[in-house]
Amino acid sequence: MDIEKFIRPNIRSLKAYEAKEIPCKVKLDANESPYGFKKVLKTLKTIETNRYPDPEAKALKKLISRYFRVKPGNILQGNGSDELIYYLITTFGGPVLYPTPTFSMYGIIAQAIGEKRIEIPLDEEFDLDLQKILTAIKKQMPKLIFLSSPNNPTGNCFSSERILKIIDLTSSLITRPHSGGLAEESHSLLSLVVVDEAYQPFSSKMGFLPLLKDCKNLVIMRTLSKIGLAGLRVGFIIADKEIINEVNKVRLPFNLNSLSQAIAIEVLKDRKTMQSQIKSIVSERENLFNKLSKINGIRLYPSEANFILFKIKDPDRIYKGLLKEGVLVRNMKGIVDGCLRVAIGTPEENRIFLKALKKVSSKI
Amino acid sequence: MDIEKFIRPNIRSLKAYEAKEIPCKVKLDANESPYGFKKVLKTLKTIETNRYPDPEAKALKKLISRYFRVKPGNILQGNGSDELIYYLITTFGGPVLYPTPTFSMYGIIAQAIGEKRIEIPLDEEFDLDLQKILTAIKKQMPKLIFLSSPNNPTGNCFSSERILKIIDLTSSLITRPHSGGLAEESHSLLSLVVVDEAYQPFSSKMGFLPLLKDCKNLVIMRTLSKIGLAGLRVGFIIADKEIINEVNKVRLPFNLNSLSQAIAIEVLKDRKTMQSQIKSIVSERENLFNKLSKINGIRLYPSEANFILFKIKDPDRIYKGLLKEGVLVRNMKGIVDGCLRVAIGTPEENRIFLKALKKVSSKI
Repeated sequence: MDIEKFIRPNIRSLKAYEAKEIPCKVKLDANESPYGFKKVLKTLKTIETNRYPDPEAKALKKLISRYFRVKPGNILQGNGSDELIYYLITTFGGPVLYPTPTFSMYGIIAQAIGEKRIEIPLDEEFDLDLQKILTAIKKQMPKLIFLSSPNNPTGNCFSSERILKIIDLTSSLITRPHSGGLAEESHSLLSLVVVDEAYQPFSSKMGFLPLLKDCKNLVIMRTLSKIGLAGLRVGFIIADKEIINEVNKVRLPFNLNSLSQAIAIEVLKDRKTMQSQIKSIVSERENLFNKLSKINGIRLYPSEANFILFKIKDPDRIYKGLLKEGVLVRNMKGIVDGCLRVAIGTPEENRIFLKALKKVSSKI
Repeated sequence: MDIEKFIRPNIRSLKAYEAKEIPCKVKLDANESPYGFKKVLKTLKTIETNRYPDPEAKALKKLISRYFRVKPGNILQGNGSDELIYYLITTFGGPVLYPTPTFSMYGIIAQAIGEKRIEIPLDEEFDLDLQKILTAIKKQMPKLIFLSSPNNPTGNCFSSERILKIIDLTSSLITRPHSGGLAEESHSLLSLVVVDEAYQPFSSKMGFLPLLKDCKNLVIMRTLSKIGLAGLRVGFIIADKEIINEVNKVRLPFNLNSLSQAIAIEVLKDRKTMQSQIKSIVSERENLFNKLSKINGIRLYPSEANFILFKIKDPDRIYKGLLKEGVLVRNMKGIVDGCLRVAIGTPEENRIFLKALKKVSSKI
């Protein structure tokens, strides 16, 4: 893979910011205050608020690398995945291709950076429209393709075969006649395919991580936001080291604050608690799905995520009615018309939601 | 000020991300986990790690607005000032002008985004070379001018008169002959002048905040990093509402995590502690300056910041010698040749530094 030619020209001569850690007793090199505010932390006693965070997030990346069985060099940390989308587009430029409807930030960030957006509507099953996507790739040669699977807001996983075909086409080996008459083989990288697996922990389908070794143009995006740590803003991408190194060039050196690093580490160490929370959300999703399916006039979409999308008559009225009962869901008006999206809560929260929905919808 | 014409074309049609806060009892609208990890926080009991942070950082901005006597609408929060430099350049584009030597991130970020950099060396007193800067402005029309005052790594404030002349030229009222023969007046915004006041809390000179009302092309940048909260990554800009609104369009909605917001609020509420820490750093700076001035072979540069830059014979050897004694300072090789930069520590830390410096420099 000739990544040098693939990245924007201005990134080529840029070097990643180096923030060496030099062991010492009295640290006076970085214009830091010698005074912290440890008293407001107490349990986070080890954090010195007055010191800059570890710019490499070494301890956190080590934990993540064990979790996913990759090397720390294959991981790049972000202040949420949002920031990594910013960095990917800053590094590689556009056009940026993604299906619609999907996570809104791909389009918003591409526009902010000033790169062209190619939006391809999903098919009737909310799956990728492979033919249209392949045609768009050949014609418009997007630098980046964002595929959220499980997809937000539809909840389903895209077909693995279709994703694979997209990866395959965009990393294809091109055979050209050599000047001497012999065939010359050269890898011509067309696009990076970013599979955003924010909701993968809730899915029964296999993720794309095992394919990383064979697919050099594949980037896996993950976040801690959906598994209990949205307030921390911790996301990361997992990809070939060459890709990570390039994106790291545009990363702000201290993008992940000390508190979030420390708490993410603490939480990830206790894998049991996290897994049991995820399990409980998945089982509650099935439970809620079954109960919703018994309500008349609702069309449910199968979900592999921590939310359920459903079509209902008069969604605006239902939305407002639910809110009057104290239940806030997402009105998908303008995105998936006629639909509401409900996140999976605690059993008690789901019970309250169901009760309110029955009450409100029976009034129609 | 016609900001529409001034920003990059792709920003024009972009709308700021809206994340409305809707009061409710059961919040199920944002695909959040219902489970948090409160036990690792304990003292930060009010923070629900599983919920997204306040995207507008309302409580924090309210406090800051009181502190600086501006409106919350004049403030934009960043994940450190670094992120705000990113956003400013993303919003307005380049060329980006700054003096050298100065804070390295202006140049690094401009390069990452792919905008032209104009570097104007400081004069022999480490002050702005006004003539060269004015010429560069007229010839190359930079969109953004970054002036760190007090400046890092030199420690001095730039002359206010020179900064004012730059602000004046770049916001100048241009009088052109009208087609009908009458003079037509039009405000033609040439550049935004960003005065980075990261070190202003330690300065005896007045900052530029009082000028905001009259200078519409002035942006003040501040950070909590130098006053005890580097680990939190909290920076902000203060400027005309029109400027804030445009930059806010490219801001990631959840750029400031919940923990940093909460702790920053806690700390800023206790203004007394913060002021007394700053006071102690300033008095220690004077103390250290006096003691350093008594050591032979050192040339000291006056400082209005929380560090001191000094020229010394054989700086590489001194640097290594200090490190052997456990004291880490910054070697300015390649940036201000022959110089070391030392941050002001606690009285005890400064004592250790002085002792080590005397020991090491006497060996030459």
